[in-house]
Amino acid sequence: MSKPIYTSVAEAEAAFYDALARSDLDAMMTVWSEDDEVVCVHPDTPRLVGLAAVRESWRQLFAGGTRLQVRTSHHVVCQNMLLTIHNVIEHVAVEGEDRLPPPMIATNVYTRGALGWRLVMHHASPAPENPHAPAHGAAHVMH
Amino acid sequence: MSKPIYTSVAEAEAAFYDALARSDLDAMMTVWSEDDEVVCVHPDTPRLVGLAAVRESWRQLFAGGTRLQVRTSHHVVCQNMLLTIHNVIEHVAVEGEDRLPPPMIATNVYTRGALGWRLVMHHASPAPENPHAPAHGAAHVMH
Repeated sequence: MSKPIYTSVAEAEAAFYDALARSDLDAMMTVWSEDDEVVCVHPDTPRLVGLAAVRESWRQLFAGGTRLQVRTSHHVVCQNMLLTIHNVIEHVAVEGEDRLPPPMIATNVYTRGALGWRLVMHHASPAPENPHAPAHGAAHVMH
Repeated sequence: MSKPIYTSVAEAEAAFYDALARSDLDAMMTVWSEDDEVVCVHPDTPRLVGLAAVRESWRQLFAGGTRLQVRTSHHVVCQNMLLTIHNVIEHVAVEGEDRLPPPMIATNVYTRGALGWRLVMHHASPAPENPHAPAHGAAHVMH
C-alpha cells in the first residue's frame, strides 16, 4: 500500500481517529512517522517508545475489532511550519453500548517531512469530570 | 521580580522541576509562557487552560509546602528552532517518606520567544509499572 501524503495536520489527525474508530491497524500505522523516535502513551499504561512497540500496542488493542464512535473537542494548538502540537478532549464510545466512558485528554504531536504531516507522539490519559480531591501530600506527589 | 531568561529548554525544564520540588509558586510561574494559551494536565484531573487556571492549580498544590525529591529520566525529544517537546519519566518522592510512588509520564512543550524558552504545555499522567490488562472492549475505549 503506498503511503498517503497528509498535507495538513487536520488530515493526519482525522486519519488517526478514523483508524481508531475502525480498529484498522494498517490505516493507524500510516499516520505515524517512520523518521522520528515515536512515543505513545495509552491511558494508565507505561510509555511506549519506537515504532515496533507502538504498532504492537495498537495490534493488541484492535484485536477485538471493536467499532467505536470517536469525537474530539476543545482543541488547543501550538504550531509552526514543521511541528504542531494538538491537545484535545477525546469522547470515545463503543458502538451499540449505552455507557459513555469519561473523556480522555490527548496531546498529539506531528512533524512535517517528505510525506507531509505525521504523528510522532500520542499521550492520552483519563480526564475525570469529578475528580476526588487528593490530600496535600498525595496531591503534591501527584502534581 | 524581573523575569529570568531561559536560553535553553534544559534551563527552563530545570527551573520547572526545581520549583516543583520547593513548592515555589513564583518560581513555577516564571517558567510558563505569558504569550500562548497554556495547558496543564495534572494526573487524573481535568485539563486546565489559561495562565490563571494553571497558576491557581499550582497554588493549591503548593499550599502544603511539601518538599519533594524530583528526578526525570528517559527523555525523548522532538524540537526545532522555536518549539521543543520533551517526554520524560518523572520520579517524585516526598522528602522524609520512605514510600516511593509510581513514576509519572510527562509531555512538556516549550516555545521560544523574547524571554527565551517558556513552558506552554505540561501533560502528566501516572505510569503504572505493572498495569492490569484490560478486557478488549475496555482496552479499546481506553486506547
